[in-house]
Amino acid sequence: MKKKKIVTIGGGTGSFMLLSGLKKYQVDLSAIVSMADDGGSTGVLRDELGVLPPGDVRQCLVALSDSSDTLRKLLNYRFETGGLKGHNFGNLFLSALEKISGGFESGIEEAIKILNVKGDIIPVTNDDARLFLKLKNGKILKGEDNINQSEIIQSSGFEKLYFEPRVSASRKAIQHISEADLILIGPGGFYTSVLPNLLADGIAEAIRNSKAIVVYNCNLTNKNGQTDGFSLDDYAEEINAYIGADRLDFVVYNSSKPDQKLIEKYQNYQQQLVEFDPDKKRDRKYKVIRADILSEEIPEYSSADSIAFTRALIRHDSNKLAKAIFLVSEMENYKNIIKDII
Amino acid sequence: MKKKKIVTIGGGTGSFMLLSGLKKYQVDLSAIVSMADDGGSTGVLRDELGVLPPGDVRQCLVALSDSSDTLRKLLNYRFETGGLKGHNFGNLFLSALEKISGGFESGIEEAIKILNVKGDIIPVTNDDARLFLKLKNGKILKGEDNINQSEIIQSSGFEKLYFEPRVSASRKAIQHISEADLILIGPGGFYTSVLPNLLADGIAEAIRNSKAIVVYNCNLTNKNGQTDGFSLDDYAEEINAYIGADRLDFVVYNSSKPDQKLIEKYQNYQQQLVEFDPDKKRDRKYKVIRADILSEEIPEYSSADSIAFTRALIRHDSNKLAKAIFLVSEMENYKNIIKDII
Repeated sequence: MKKKKIVTIGGGTGSFMLLSGLKKYQVDLSAIVSMADDGGSTGVLRDELGVLPPGDVRQCLVALSDSSDTLRKLLNYRFETGGLKGHNFGNLFLSALEKISGGFESGIEEAIKILNVKGDIIPVTNDDARLFLKLKNGKILKGEDNINQSEIIQSSGFEKLYFEPRVSASRKAIQHISEADLILIGPGGFYTSVLPNLLADGIAEAIRNSKAIVVYNCNLTNKNGQTDGFSLDDYAEEINAYIGADRLDFVVYNSSKPDQKLIEKYQNYQQQLVEFDPDKKRDRKYKVIRADILSEEIPEYSSADSIAFTRALIRHDSNKLAKAIFLVSEMENYKNIIKDII
Repeated sequence: MKKKKIVTIGGGTGSFMLLSGLKKYQVDLSAIVSMADDGGSTGVLRDELGVLPPGDVRQCLVALSDSSDTLRKLLNYRFETGGLKGHNFGNLFLSALEKISGGFESGIEEAIKILNVKGDIIPVTNDDARLFLKLKNGKILKGEDNINQSEIIQSSGFEKLYFEPRVSASRKAIQHISEADLILIGPGGFYTSVLPNLLADGIAEAIRNSKAIVVYNCNLTNKNGQTDGFSLDDYAEEINAYIGADRLDFVVYNSSKPDQKLIEKYQNYQQQLVEFDPDKKRDRKYKVIRADILSEEIPEYSSADSIAFTRALIRHDSNKLAKAIFLVSEMENYKNIIKDII
């Protein structure tokens, strides 16, 4: 039997989680990754070495690598002192490979060989992508890192997300979308990891023309100051707007309620669960899959960053999400996971 | 048949060359490596991260790795701009592994697994080794890098090479020496790569007590300001003095004459070929193997450093040297390589 071709579109920890679950299946996986990151170690490497941003690609490499725990730890290792402080080893690995192989895409191809990665990882663009967000009050947020940290997007009103100058989708990304059986969008930072992919010239058109089933994995919580009050339908409609058609076939929504204490903790930081009211709207063009895709693990944290801390406590279970996604093409085996389809 | 256990003792490009030749044989290879390096990228990492010096170990890893050309290029890649300028990727790789695995020795063991290395690489010491060289005029050269660059050792008179504080040989190094069938010392920087190994407490004693055949691979040229005028016997006697016994069984000497133009080029930089006069001394306790071990390749250089340039033009052929070494235990097959034994 021919393997199903699955293409994920996203970046960062969202793609990491999703790929970690999907890779356990016999499928042909490709991860299309946002190239907007300009913060931290990645931002310094872009500026100082003139390389493309390695951070999101690295997370996908770690997710899909079949190598030892040590190698995975190594790729995520961050130097803590001296001139290297803050640099992530995996980022240096990708930047050095880009330099040696003469390009980011070829550098990733080498990394895939070295790390015994099952699947492909594809930069959404090979251009130097610089992200901007315009607010309704005229103010412009410059750079992915600034946008990611902003808490005034909701209060000032979101007007427009764009690359300046415009960027073209990579030929490889277009090709994989065109040949996909299943396209998975998200989860991830909405303005910083998910939508930027759809802004690369050629991606939206390729998704519109693709014969794939298109699924949107909605985030579990809204982001303070950015997507406060967004319902599942708000996210899904915005995705369709960026694609330029009612192209989403399915939206996956978490039906499990997190522990009440966790919800309260989140509320202290103005973080709300994404809501979904099946009765509120009657004209949706996509089916909503309500499923238990919530992680029950309590992760360990070394960071004292309290917002990162609380946000990560309510998170997807990568195995449950992967199962829910496979429902789309294979209903039968997953009845115990799926609650209903609306 | 049990594989012969071969232990090399050295560091830097000398060990790289030697191991590159030896690894083609069915032998059990271990490289004991000097931990004195404190220059360049290695020096910065020692100071800023508090790690042990990765540079010499990296060269041995590259020599013994069975991995792709790209991976070998990657390990030798040097960042050229920004805060990473001058750092060697392979050094960062070893330093990060040291941090993750909790020690330099365990970090190397992980690197050996990741890179599919055939053989073992063993730091001569796990202590923080700081090398000093005292001159007869009382002046003290501090650090391996300073010693390596000094051109006044010969003129001021060499008095003493030492670690301050003293360092202990690693248990693993002692064990491998004790179990070796063949111990190969050098080639390499005499004061900076070869002798420092013999200074680690326990190494000399282990060599004295070992039942192995002990071979010294003499350098081809003397180093300007350091070992000017040294004959093969001068080197060999100094090695025996550091071992504390007439322990050398064989000394390998190059019998081929380099191109006259190359010799003149070297002479412009006060670099002379190491001389050997079989009739000059009658009391030597070691046998001298005169063999054609000279490289006929002209290497390519990107560096404008003229001394490094000329020095490297007269160099060992790793395959010929490996063959000459195997003569020690298997005479028959190598008659065409060996000129005579004295």
